[in-house]
Parts: sequence; C-alpha cells; structure tokens
Amino acid sequence: MLALKITVKLSGHVLFPTIDTQARISEYAGIVKELVSKGHEVNVVVGGGAPARYYIQIARQQGADESTCDFVGIQIANLNAKIFSIALGDLACPFVPTNYYEMQKAKSIGKIIVMGGLQPGQSTNAVACVLAEFTHSNLLINTTTVDGVYTSDPRKDPKARRLSKVSVSELNKILESLGTKAGEYELLDPVALRIIQRSRITTKIIDGTNPTNILTACADLESGIGTLIVP
Amino acid sequence: MLALKITVKLSGHVLFPTIDTQARISEYAGIVKELVSKGHEVNVVVGGGAPARYYIQIARQQGADESTCDFVGIQIANLNAKIFSIALGDLACPFVPTNYYEMQKAKSIGKIIVMGGLQPGQSTNAVACVLAEFTHSNLLINTTTVDGVYTSDPRKDPKARRLSKVSVSELNKILESLGTKAGEYELLDPVALRIIQRSRITTKIIDGTNPTNILTACADLESGIGTLIVP
Amino acid sequence: MLALKITVKLSGHVLFPTIDTQARISEYAGIVKELVSKGHEVNVVVGGGAPARYYIQIARQQGADESTCDFVGIQIANLNAKIFSIALGDLACPFVPTNYYEMQKAKSIGKIIVMGGLQPGQSTNAVACVLAEFTHSNLLINTTTVDGVYTSDPRKDPKARRLSKVSVSELNKILESLGTKAGEYELLDPVALRIIQRSRITTKIIDGTNPTNILTACADLESGIGTLIVP
Amino acid sequence: MLALKITVKLSGHVLFPTIDTQARISEYAGIVKELVSKGHEVNVVVGGGAPARYYIQIARQQGADESTCDFVGIQIANLNAKIFSIALGDLACPFVPTNYYEMQKAKSIGKIIVMGGLQPGQSTNAVACVLAEFTHSNLLINTTTVDGVYTSDPRKDPKARRLSKVSVSELNKILESLGTKAGEYELLDPVALRIIQRSRITTKIIDGTNPTNILTACADLESGIGTLIVP
Amino acid sequence: MLALKITVKLSGHVLFPTIDTQARISEYAGIVKELVSKGHEVNVVVGGGAPARYYIQIARQQGADESTCDFVGIQIANLNAKIFSIALGDLACPFVPTNYYEMQKAKSIGKIIVMGGLQPGQSTNAVACVLAEFTHSNLLINTTTVDGVYTSDPRKDPKARRLSKVSVSELNKILESLGTKAGEYELLDPVALRIIQRSRITTKIIDGTNPTNILTACADLESGIGTLIVP
Amino acid sequence: MLALKITVKLSGHVLFPTIDTQARISEYAGIVKELVSKGHEVNVVVGGGAPARYYIQIARQQGADESTCDFVGIQIANLNAKIFSIALGDLACPFVPTNYYEMQKAKSIGKIIVMGGLQPGQSTNAVACVLAEFTHSNLLINTTTVDGVYTSDPRKDPKARRLSKVSVSELNKILESLGTKAGEYELLDPVALRIIQRSRITTKIIDGTNPTNILTACADLESGIGTLIVP
Repeated sequence: MLALKITVKLSGHVLFPTIDTQARISEYAGIVKELVSKGHEVNVVVGGGAPARYYIQIARQQGADESTCDFVGIQIANLNAKIFSIALGDLACPFVPTNYYEMQKAKSIGKIIVMGGLQPGQSTNAVACVLAEFTHSNLLINTTTVDGVYTSDPRKDPKARRLSKVSVSELNKILESLGTKAGEYELLDPVALRIIQRSRITTKIIDGTNPTNILTACADLESGIGTLIVP
Repeated sequence: MLALKITVKLSGHVLFPTIDTQARISEYAGIVKELVSKGHEVNVVVGGGAPARYYIQIARQQGADESTCDFVGIQIANLNAKIFSIALGDLACPFVPTNYYEMQKAKSIGKIIVMGGLQPGQSTNAVACVLAEFTHSNLLINTTTVDGVYTSDPRKDPKARRLSKVSVSELNKILESLGTKAGEYELLDPVALRIIQRSRITTKIIDGTNPTNILTACADLESGIGTLIVP
Repeated sequence: MLALKITVKLSGHVLFPTIDTQARISEYAGIVKELVSKGHEVNVVVGGGAPARYYIQIARQQGADESTCDFVGIQIANLNAKIFSIALGDLACPFVPTNYYEMQKAKSIGKIIVMGGLQPGQSTNAVACVLAEFTHSNLLINTTTVDGVYTSDPRKDPKARRLSKVSVSELNKILESLGTKAGEYELLDPVALRIIQRSRITTKIIDGTNPTNILTACADLESGIGTLIVP
Repeated sequence: MLALKITVKLSGHVLFPTIDTQARISEYAGIVKELVSKGHEVNVVVGGGAPARYYIQIARQQGADESTCDFVGIQIANLNAKIFSIALGDLACPFVPTNYYEMQKAKSIGKIIVMGGLQPGQSTNAVACVLAEFTHSNLLINTTTVDGVYTSDPRKDPKARRLSKVSVSELNKILESLGTKAGEYELLDPVALRIIQRSRITTKIIDGTNPTNILTACADLESGIGTLIVP
Repeated sequence: MLALKITVKLSGHVLFPTIDTQARISEYAGIVKELVSKGHEVNVVVGGGAPARYYIQIARQQGADESTCDFVGIQIANLNAKIFSIALGDLACPFVPTNYYEMQKAKSIGKIIVMGGLQPGQSTNAVACVLAEFTHSNLLINTTTVDGVYTSDPRKDPKARRLSKVSVSELNKILESLGTKAGEYELLDPVALRIIQRSRITTKIIDGTNPTNILTACADLESGIGTLIVP
Repeated sequence: MLALKITVKLSGHVLFPTIDTQARISEYAGIVKELVSKGHEVNVVVGGGAPARYYIQIARQQGADESTCDFVGIQIANLNAKIFSIALGDLACPFVPTNYYEMQKAKSIGKIIVMGGLQPGQSTNAVACVLAEFTHSNLLINTTTVDGVYTSDPRKDPKARRLSKVSVSELNKILESLGTKAGEYELLDPVALRIIQRSRITTKIIDGTNPTNILTACADLESGIGTLIVP
C-alpha cells in the first residue's frame, strides 16, 4: 500500500453531532490513529459546527459585523481542534496553531497537526486547503453531512443528484448559488477551490456521519462513495 | 451619588441562560451602560456557563487532565467575554485581555475591560478579584444563580438559609464542603476570598437571574438582597 | 458633504511603481490626509506589488509550496503598509496589525489603520474587504493598474471593454478565467466578492496610477471613472 | 525501582539562599539530573525567594496593587527558573513557559520543563500543582525552609509539632491562619490544595535546605522525613 | 522655556542603590513628573544595576553563554522599568515594551514610555539611544555613578580628569580600553555612540546619585556639571 | 576532520545579487548542506542587501527616524532568512526566530537556525555574533562583497591592502572611519567586535561572491583567502 500525506477536514457538524458526541469523537480519533498506524501522514482541520453557529448567531444579533462573526466562529473551531487533539493523545501536536508562524512550529514537532480556523474571510475548508499545501498532502478528504457534491442543495431540491466526479470549474458554478454568512459554509468555498486548483490537490468529499468512509476513501479513491474533485 | 469603581462578575450561567439568551445579554449590556452613564467606572468578568461545562465534560471524557479542562473552560469564558464586549459596543475595550500583560494594555485604553479566564487553577471568580485589585475597584459584584450565600447548598439542603452578611473566614468554611472540578465553581473560591481579604474589597453576591439586582446593589450595599462579604 | 467611512485598497503596483516611487507614495499620503481633513474616516490596505512578486518567484523556485509563497508575499505587503504609515506620520496607527486580535487593538487607537496581508489563501483584496467590514466602511475603493473592470483581460484581449457598473455575480464569472498563483491577484478575488456581497459594501474599482482618482470617486460614486460594483 | 513522573517545587528561598547560592543551585541541578538518570521523568517549578520579596516590597511601597505585586514576583520566579534551566544544561527545555499555551509547546520538546509563575492570584505552589496535573505526575515534592507541615507556624509557636501525614482538609484549616500578601506564600495555598485533591496527587513536603532529602523522599515516600499529604 | 523631548537613561546602580532604594526611586519619579509638568515630553530607560549583576554572575557560573547572560540582565532591567513605571503612576505607559513592535504600541498611548533592555548584544545605553531616535528626542540624559566622562577610569586612575565636552570619536577611544562583559557597561558603548552620531542627538552624561542634576542639566546644557557629548 | 560549530553570516548583497539570484541561493544552500553532511553543526544569519537598502531609502525619505529604518531593514533580512531556509528544505528550522525567546525554541528543534535581524541599533553582523555565542560556535564566517578586511575602503582608496590577520582593536580603528546609516554596515561593527572579543570567537572574513570560499575557510583557517580576526 502507498503511504499517503493526507489532510482530513472534519466538519464541525460531523465531529460534534447533537447526540453521541463523545462516541463520534472517539471513533474519528480511532480512525486517524489507524491511518497513522498504516504509515500515512495525517493532519486534521476541524470546523465549528453547531456551537459555532450558536455563538455566531448571538454575536450577529448583538451587532457584530461579519468579520467579527467569523472571528467568533474561529474561536470555536480552534477549541474543537483542541478537543480532537486531546482525543488523539500523544500522537497529536499538543498545541493548536492559529497562524502561519505557529504552523511552522507545529510542523517541526512531527506529530499530527490539528487546526481550526485562521482569519476572518476564510472558511475552515480554506484552512484545510492551506494546511494541505503546507504539508504537501497528496490527498485532501473533506467530510460533510451529505454524501458528496450534488448538482444543487439536496436538502432543498429533490432533483439534486450526486456527482461521483466534478471539475473545479463546475463546482465553482454550483457554489455560486449558496450564501456566505459566517459559519454557514458547507462545501468547499471559492478560496478552497482556488487552492485545490493552484496546487492540484486530489480532493474527495464524503459523508462524514459514517466515519469509516474515510478508510474506504483512502483505500480506493475511485470507490463509489462521495465525490472526487478533479483539479 | 458617589462614583464607584465597580468590577462586575457575570456568571456564565447568568449571562448565557438556555432560553432567551439574547434578551439576557442585551439587558445586562444595558445595565452596564447605565452604570457608566451614572459616572461609575465599570469592568466586567464573564464566566463560562453551560457551554464551558459542555466542552469540559467532553475534554475530560476524552482523557484531558484537569488543567487542560480548565484551559478548555477558559477559552469559552473568553469567547463569552468577547460576545459581551460586542453587546457593549464602543464603550468596551475591543479586545479581551487574556494575561496580565494584555490587561495593562487594556487599562491604557480607558474603556470597559471585559475578561474571561486567565490560567488553569484559577476560576473566573478569582479573575474578577484580580481585575478588581488591578483596577482599584471599591466594589465587586458577583452574580450567581441563587440569591446569595447560604449556610449550605440550597439546592440540596432545605434547611439552608441565606446570610445577609458573612465574613471571609466563615465563607471559607462553607466553601470547603464543595467540590472543585473545572467549570463547577459556583461561588467565590479560596483564591477569590484571599484576594478579597488581602486587598479588602467590598464584595456583594447577588442573584444574577434578575439583572436589575445590580442597580439595587450599587445604589445601596445594605439593601436586603444578596449577601455582603466583609473582608 | 457626507462624512464617509472609507477603506482604501492601494495595489502594491500602484503604490510602489518602478520609477518615481517616492513621489507616488507622498502623493497618496497627501490624498489620504486630504480625505481625513474633509471629515472622512479612512483606513488603508496595501498590496505587495513588484517586490512581493520578486520574492515569491524566488521562493517558488527554491521549492516553497504555494501557502509559503503567500506568506512571503504577505511579509512584503506588511512592510509596504509600514512604509505608507510612515508617510502618513502621526495620523496613522503606529503599528501594522497582522491578525484580527491586533486589528482590535489598532481600532482602539482611533487613527488610520494601515494593513498589508493576513494569512495564506487570502489576497490583500480580501483583507481590504475584511477591514471594510470590521470598520463598518460604507465605501471600499480598490485601486488597480487598469481603469476598472473589463469584460476580459484588457492586456490580452483587444475587444475587452470597461464596465461602469457590474454585479457581484457577473464579476465572479469574469474572475473565473484568471489564474491564482500567489502575488498575482489583480482584481477582487472570490473571497473579496463574497464579503462585498454578505456585508453589502459599495465598492469602486479605479485606476490607481492617477492618485487623484480617489478624490473623484469619493466626491461622486457615479462619476464616469472606474467601475462600480453592485453588491 | 519504579519510574515515576515527578514534579519538584523548589522554593525560591531554598534554591537562592543568601549565602553559597551557586553551590545550592549546582547541588539541586545534580540531584535532578540523578533522578532523570534513574529513569524518572522530572519537571520543576521554582519560586521567587528573597529577590522576589525585595522587588515586591519596593513595588508595594511605590503604590502597586497586590495583583501587580504578584506580577512583579512572577517575573523573578521566571528568571529563577531560567537560571535553574541553565544549570540543568541540555536536559532542560531551553525556554521557560509562562502560560498554558507555551506549556503545551514545552511538553512537545520532551525535556525537563522548568517554570516560575503564571498569573497574579496564583502562588508558584499552585503552578507546581498545575504542572503536576498537566504532566500526569504521580508525585509532587514541595520543598520549604522548614522540615514539613507543622500544626502551627514553628517560627512563632514553640508548641508546633510536625505532622508526618496530613489530610487536605486538615491542612486547609492550618493555612487559614496564615496571611496572603504577594510573595509570602510559604506552604501549599488553597488553590494548590484543591488541585491536589481534584487530581489526587501524592504530595510530599520536605525541608529543601538539605537537597538530598529529595532523593530520600523519592526512594521511600513513607520515610520519616517531611510530611505526606493525603489527597 | 523651551519644551524639549527628553530621553532619560537611569543607570540601574543609580535608581536601585543598596540603601534607601525607595527614597531614590520616589525622588526620581518626582523629578520626571516635574519635567512633564514643565511641558517637556519625557521617556525613560532603566538599567539593570546590582540585581542584574547578581543574576548575571550566577548565570555565567552555571555555564550560560554571554548572550544568555545579556538576556538574564535584560529581564531585570525590564523589571526595574516596571517598578519605575509604578512609581510614575498614571503618567506612565502601563506596560514595558520589550521590542520595537511593542514600542510602536507604547507610542500610540501618549504617556511616558519606560523601558529596560531589548536584545542580547545591546546595552541599556544603546536602548536609550534607540528610544531617543524613535521618539525624536532632542536631548538624551545619561546618568552614571560618576560625575561625567573622564579621560580614564576615575576609580583606577588618580590622574583621570573629567571632560566638560567631548566628541564622539574621542569618547570612542576612551571606551576601547574598557571591558564588555554583560551587565558591566558603565558609560555609553559603541552602539550608543554610533546612534548618537547618526541621529545627532545632544547627549549629557551626569552623576545620577544626585537626582536634581537632571533638572540642572535640562535647564542649561552648558552648566558646569557632567559631560556634554558633541555628535 | 574536526566537527565544528559554525555560524555563517551571509551578506544580503552576497546572497541576493542583482543577477543570477536563484543560482547564488541554490549554490549557498548546497554548500551549507555539504558542511552539515561533513558533520559540522551550522547556523546561518542573512543580511538585508539591496532590497533592504531600497526600503530603507524610501522609509528615510518619507520621514522615518533611523531606528525605524533599522526596523524596516530587519523585516527584509528576516524575509531573506526565510527564503534561505526554504532553500535548505527539511534541514532548516521551519521558522525564523526574531528574538531571544524564539531563538531558545529554535535551538530545541535541532535543525539549522536561519535568522535575519533582531532589533534596531544592531546590524545583522552583530546578530551573527549573538547567534555564534548562543550556539557555542567555534567559528564565525562572515561573507562580504570584498575579499577580506582592508587597511581602508578598497573601493575608495587604491592604496588599501588586505590584511590576512587582524586584531580586534586594530579592526576597531579601521571601522571608526566608516559611516553608520541603517543598512550600510559592511564589515563587522563595534558590537560584533565586542562580542567576538568577549566570547573569543574565531572569525574569518571572506569574499562571499565565490561561495566555495566557505569550504576553503572551514578546511583551513590559515588558508590564504580572506582575513582572520584574532580575538
């Protein structure tokens, strides 16, 4: 088997579900450990999820501008990352880097880097792409709450159908119809897509509510699950 | 009326109740603004509340040591502080200081300092006492979810009765029977009490679920509500 | 005249031209001072320009990943910002904030904030949008080396024609045909556009090689010069 | 022999005596090296001692509040820690962490962490307890200038007698009669005791003026010297 | 009277004498306040003095390299600066800047900047010169434990005679015969002299053991006391 | 062959020549790698060169004081250091330390430390000396654009002749006749010389425009090239 450099983006909604949160976190920690034991190098970015939405909603109603809402969401994403690094134990870099300078330090430690957000204006998906570039990943796995990229929003459009493969430019068009309020990024946003394109990172979008999907995706990129993005 | 230097400790449970959170935050922001408009100097410390407990519980179950649990709770307290500073708008120092060095900078700005936690091992009550010392406060108001200090835990002991006045050493004895897990500090802990004693800070403990209690307490320390702590 | 909150994005190519650099910088500093003297609140973001391209090119050839190339470009943008703050003298915030936390501090000082870049993955155009949100700007002026947005790249396509007004979604389509290597962002990138849209920031793109264009644009948004972006 | 995780608290008065300071520091460095060579993992917290008292006294007389006095004392404790890390040479983490974030980084280096203080309101004894939790120590050794915990202050009360074993709650009562001015903490303070209790850390208090006592204590916790604290 | 921009360098030996330290600090704080009340802008750099020498000596004997010894001395100089800022009360910038970035922030506050050291290799005299440049001082007053610059070391050479005026190049020659161990810089070192020369800062060296000498020097640079350095 | 601890100072003019910059950088990276492969420990300081002069000149003309000009030059030197660390790949510490605290962290990583500048008032030559002390180097190699130390400036004085050996005090006299504007330090400045003297660091000054000179110098200090400085 080929040893890969993998960046895993765990959606906050996937890692911190409303029920059975502990079990989900433990399960994902187990899967990352398994990937490492198989010889892969793994780094992780965690999103904000429901707690981020909760705080962003309060901040916005109290008068915060959107940049500040982003900042609020980033704090939660960083905390989620800390929690996940705790679950990984000694395999994880013990601190959560929150800027490029700290990312450099984390790299020098040689353990699993777990990150949340960076700066307002960037989704944690974009952060995952930056980390994938920075760690020279050859695979980026992005978990969502649906089972891949659809032609339109599957929660609103019954005709939406999943794409097993999609080019970046097609995906760009699909994304344009979505909103951009802080904490509501669901799929890869335009920055993420630009980074995927500029560094030609193979990307797989999968349903993260079933954690073992990551193993399936790593074992065979062409497996039927999820959506493969062609840079 | 005398212009006071007041440090207000807002319990996380008080400021972030499960329902009507927005209304509560707005109401407290309004009260702090009112105190300022009356000529008082006000600084605020916000606790972690339910979101902190949620994260601490996850962290502990994933294997975090208690210091790390404290750290996790502090992140939420700091975020709660950021939210409250947003609600205060231009009256508030725009950043949340998280160590003494940053506290010095916040002081130089001359606006309402809003803080959360400092370091593991210290409750946000202790932080409120440190801030009270640092800002030379002559009054520390500590909000809780009960209406003052009781002879024992009023949620467990039906014979518990509220004390209208209590000395620090009596309070110390009451506290000894309580636990100390991260995020579960309810009243003033030993560090807080030692600081109250060493700097002789007049302290009033009140029921924070009724925000106007702060106005009553500031207008008349000997008013019937809450508990007055005698250094 | 209405007092506006204006964020000015000065392209690095515009502020640091190959010849007469000193004169250009002095002229722009004079214009910003004039806007301030007219009662406007002004904040500034400066791009990397030719020096950034020089360093990015070296970094890339020495093996740097694109995120690191972004970081390299950001260092130059920050230095350019420092230079421009020197030119503004006592009107400028004396330090260049490089993350959101420092932006909060800069805000508390009440002087012209001059920034460069934030983090890899974000262009300085995106930073200008974040700063516009953060300072509640009602006008964002973006200088380029051409005289507005064209239907295609005017340097390559003789049929390209300037748009006097353009919607965000139309602009998005135009941008898709452009590349994304670090330091080569010319117009507003997708992040910038999303922020313009989410916070509904009136944006004017003008030819920055003639500094007085800014005064024209501020005096009358509907003036013939440049391109007005409709959120 | 069992390999232990030991946190050693070296009182500033013990490590920086008025005479023969160099010899004392060298001797303690030798003992820590010996513990490491025996397979124990050792981390160290150093107090402020006489230099801290000197500066705190000046600060207080010049009008500093008690929080600021604490801060002043912490600076000296951190410097004492730096000195001790120099004495340990390559075995020590080369920087002195001064907050939890830096503690995480120090942990990743895998060398002896040497710390001083954290934040106002916390004694270096509390810091030692936080470090003991953070490093999962199964033994905390606390050196003082007396030979254990006494029923009252042995320097004032001739009837004071040393306790070979004491429970946390008994110790709490003994501490209540002591003062709390910055830099005057002698034994474990209430925060320290609460941490010992919450994380059930076996703690031994010994006379640090005889450095070899540490070796005796590590070899046999039930040895006659000092006082064993039962969580 | 002319309002001056004055940078005062207070030697650690002058500000922290072995006896009557409190009185000396209070007296100097009073003099700085008096200068401010007369309309002068004053900024202050404080040296390390005897406490710095104490720690440097220990560090060196424990095996520290000279750079680390410098670092140790800088920590004490910074603490001395903090003490002096406490003595100045609300007139002083509440934090001690320790690098150029923080100096920029301190400048924005508009209060008396009090600094200690910057980085290894630079004496606090050099720091005073940097601060003088940075604050556009037209006068730098440097206090020593002797009453000016002598033709040779007056403590060793009975023929040494005080110079009332000296050029930088003459002073350079005098300095060459002195040693350079960390913490032993007595007069202006070569860096300091180069800065004085490059920015043409009028400098007066006076006996600081008589604090009122500063007032005399500010009132009349040509007064008989001390030594005037001609850039 | 003896394994040495070598600090290499690469002049910015040497590492970033106007033409063939990439080739020069690659060549120097190759030479440092070769030294490491031979068992030497190598650390590197990079100067600012032409880009630093460009920015310093603009800053000065826009009204910056000399300290700020130094700061501007330091930013470029730090960026040059980042570029060189990229060229060294995994052998280099991934971050550029910019103060002593970060230098301590870099040391703990055990890779090649690459630095630029520290603080205003210090040249990058002084920084190289500080790093040499800090890493206990037994050899400091300083590259220039001439082939050693001359009795006077060889670009101005045709009678200037190269010295194969020179004492620190002789060198001091030669330096006195040179100017000190920021970014114009060419040879070792007085601070650098004092550090060389206090820590008795063997120093070799060589013509850096021929990169292989470093190998020659390391193989035989008494080789005819360059100038050997005798502490």
